[in-house]
Amino acid sequence: MKWSRTLSAYVAGFLDGDGSIYVQLKPNRTYRYRFQVAPYIVFYQSEKGKNAIRALKRELQCGYIRERRDGIIEYIIGDITSLRNVLVNILPFLRLKERQAKLLLSVLNKKQRVKSATDFLELCRRIDAFQQLNYSKKRKTLTNNVATVLKREGLLTP
Amino acid sequence: MKWSRTLSAYVAGFLDGDGSIYVQLKPNRTYRYRFQVAPYIVFYQSEKGKNAIRALKRELQCGYIRERRDGIIEYIIGDITSLRNVLVNILPFLRLKERQAKLLLSVLNKKQRVKSATDFLELCRRIDAFQQLNYSKKRKTLTNNVATVLKREGLLTP
Repeated sequence: MKWSRTLSAYVAGFLDGDGSIYVQLKPNRTYRYRFQVAPYIVFYQSEKGKNAIRALKRELQCGYIRERRDGIIEYIIGDITSLRNVLVNILPFLRLKERQAKLLLSVLNKKQRVKSATDFLELCRRIDAFQQLNYSKKRKTLTNNVATVLKREGLLTP
Repeated sequence: MKWSRTLSAYVAGFLDGDGSIYVQLKPNRTYRYRFQVAPYIVFYQSEKGKNAIRALKRELQCGYIRERRDGIIEYIIGDITSLRNVLVNILPFLRLKERQAKLLLSVLNKKQRVKSATDFLELCRRIDAFQQLNYSKKRKTLTNNVATVLKREGLLTP
């Protein structure tokens, strides 16, 4: 879905100001490679912004709203089709989170093409690159942990 | 200065997400009505966003950047001409802070037309309306304090 240029620019500004682009790697034994790759774009607002966020969600036609116990509203987009659509629309206008947006696109592309444990580790490396962008302090990398699990389970030749 | 529609929409989104519109009323005996009216638009970012914020400032051709001790970058616009210009450009695209923006415009207009202590109190009332918009909890109103000072100083007929 192609958005108007001003809607795209608005969402880019909103995300640059207050949003977050990230990928979670969650241990989950029901998944083929024992980890679930969960990408997200999230917008945060105080409770007073609830109606405006609801209106934005209706306009963007994707995602869902979660009201946290501390009163913060989260507008969360997590499905791959919607994420890709949002990213492609806002990329030309992003100023602060352009690298995160490009990296998330590359994660989404890689995620759909994983055919082996080695591919999966490459995907994990891109997710690690993400952590480096989002946090100024060095975070421990996850790829090694995943490799250890995959080897232990006999999914990756040592 | 007329901005492009996408720049205006971006700044509107950025301000809705992470910015703040407010007016300070500072006691200052050198001012005619004993208080300085100081309106602001402020954008906040972590240190990592410094270059992007600098680039935005160059493009908007107004305001200044302050680096707080806690590492937060503040991009502050405080002069009336620039404030009015920013507000007029972004108003069509604001979703969350539209009321604050309109109220700030009305404060700026009133500020330039203050000719008496009574006018000044009317300006203070608009600033109080601001506090009600920005904070969910009721803040004590400032107008009464200002009126007390103006009466004490013989600037307002009791």
